Amino acid sequence: MDIQKPYLLFLGDAADSLAAKVAQGIHDWRPENVVGQLRLKNCNADLGLQDMNIPAAVEAGAKTLVVGVANRGGVISDLWIEVLQQALLDGLDLAAGLHNKLADVPQLRAAADRLGRKLFDVRHPTGVFPVASGIKRSGKRLLTVGTDCSCGKMYTSLAIEKEMRSRGINVDFRATGQTGILITGAGVSIDAVVSDFISGAVETLTPENDSDHWDVIEGQGSLFHASFAGVTLGLIHGAQPDALILCHEPTRTHMRGLPTYSLPEIGECMEANLKAAQLTNPNVKFAGISVNTSKLSIPESNKFLEETENRFGMVTVDPVRQGVSRIVEGLL
Amino acid sequence: MDIQKPYLLFLGDAADSLAAKVAQGIHDWRPENVVGQLRLKNCNADLGLQDMNIPAAVEAGAKTLVVGVANRGGVISDLWIEVLQQALLDGLDLAAGLHNKLADVPQLRAAADRLGRKLFDVRHPTGVFPVASGIKRSGKRLLTVGTDCSCGKMYTSLAIEKEMRSRGINVDFRATGQTGILITGAGVSIDAVVSDFISGAVETLTPENDSDHWDVIEGQGSLFHASFAGVTLGLIHGAQPDALILCHEPTRTHMRGLPTYSLPEIGECMEANLKAAQLTNPNVKFAGISVNTSKLSIPESNKFLEETENRFGMVTVDPVRQGVSRIVEGLL
Repeated sequence: MDIQKPYLLFLGDAADSLAAKVAQGIHDWRPENVVGQLRLKNCNADLGLQDMNIPAAVEAGAKTLVVGVANRGGVISDLWIEVLQQALLDGLDLAAGLHNKLADVPQLRAAADRLGRKLFDVRHPTGVFPVASGIKRSGKRLLTVGTDCSCGKMYTSLAIEKEMRSRGINVDFRATGQTGILITGAGVSIDAVVSDFISGAVETLTPENDSDHWDVIEGQGSLFHASFAGVTLGLIHGAQPDALILCHEPTRTHMRGLPTYSLPEIGECMEANLKAAQLTNPNVKFAGISVNTSKLSIPESNKFLEETENRFGMVTVDPVRQGVSRIVEGLL
Repeated sequence: MDIQKPYLLFLGDAADSLAAKVAQGIHDWRPENVVGQLRLKNCNADLGLQDMNIPAAVEAGAKTLVVGVANRGGVISDLWIEVLQQALLDGLDLAAGLHNKLADVPQLRAAADRLGRKLFDVRHPTGVFPVASGIKRSGKRLLTVGTDCSCGKMYTSLAIEKEMRSRGINVDFRATGQTGILITGAGVSIDAVVSDFISGAVETLTPENDSDHWDVIEGQGSLFHASFAGVTLGLIHGAQPDALILCHEPTRTHMRGLPTYSLPEIGECMEANLKAAQLTNPNVKFAGISVNTSKLSIPESNKFLEETENRFGMVTVDPVRQGVSRIVEGLL
């Protein structure tokens, strides 16, 4: 996947700002890749970007319309199709991270074929991946892992990339999920790869590099998630990480989507991830703990971070509240 | 997948008997499902079955022609296509476990569509699987795991099923790879499932059952295989095994296909598998060690088995040389 930039962000008829979180992520992390937003009537999201129709976006240099909104079930709304067709007609490619594919909408498929435009369904990898070789690659790699799904792995990875870049470090964020792919315009939606090729896809995603180069790889799932741990383990092995960051959300009462499964202890989780990662990189180490304390008050958050830091002797931050500079300093 | 029996086993132009090992497996484990063999000129394999042409097989009751031969690269040889077309014409379905699909050969696809026959490409799952729920299912489950790939997991599982059945136990072998699926006519080729759904596919494969029923589930890969461990972990979690059997080949000098990776120690491997399995079934236990000692002399084999049994306090057998009755006795 190599999506042409800059983007026009399509917010559609987003029910609320959460429904437009993909667009929000792109705007937050790659504002330089965005020319404006396109909203339909009844859109309840607003990124504060300039509202543009398609001709104005093309005029402003846009190359791709990105569907930055999700509705229930991840489907492509009939309301959107007319706009998406117009975008193709006016010269834009389309990209989306929905369950249903743009390429499966006959009108869009036909228009794209006729006009020579590209449809990027980033949740559906099109590449053919090799079986992993396990051979050590040059360059340095950091991987975020988690006590659970959806606890801040993408955010933490992007924050670390940004912090490293600001310090002049040779670094790339490597996206493994649809939002990350749309943010950066490249990556592999690892949970949609055929299971024989999980680790091989990650090896392909983070190829050999300069010895001082860092790949900051977005983690997925959790070794303790009964639905997705296989994805996580394959990702860990393919990544061959030198450094791991544990991501955690401390107020969760059970594993996401699994009401009868409680969260692992932080120490147990770090030990299991370290052991798994040692298979393909015996020198792997943990380099920090990243906690999403958004549901705690500032005093509660500070107490939790301090206690965790002392307990594990490991830099512990909320990447939103404190930033990740202490983690990056520890790494360098 | 539900392949109609009995089968005509197609050995094609097998270069040697190893090339026909799928057919051999079906003949060994389910002789009652086979009416005969069909060999082309230059076939160097012979199962000792009655040679039959297609009309004779149909006359004998065959419902499906199974491609029981693999050639280099897993492709469908041009030499075979005429025979396979004839089989469709004469009323048989086709089944194969090759990398390339029967359904992708235009002549076969067209003939099957026209005649209403089925093409089973068992390496390519066609079902839609749910995300795993992790909810405990009734019935008992045994899963074979291994220090490496291809070290006897399918053989051990089939031997345990056979031993249990001979003792009147309510038992089913659950196939997770193409050979196992062709042997039993059902199953899921788990390494070909999209990675998000590995555990969910296994939950579907081994549904709730009577409390005294055993599912004997064929393992895949190894937690210590840098290419495939994600598949193995997803399979373990979906299986929710009550009992694990460790399979091992003691003469291997490195992990299969990975020259720089050595095999794990048996104890380390058992501990890792037990820990992984405890996530979805805290009561899981190891119930034996199954060693493929075919490359050892009888005295060497006996010494290895005895030492391993004493070291781990765990029934240890070569399933070919000793059978698995001691493992099954320990389970009951």
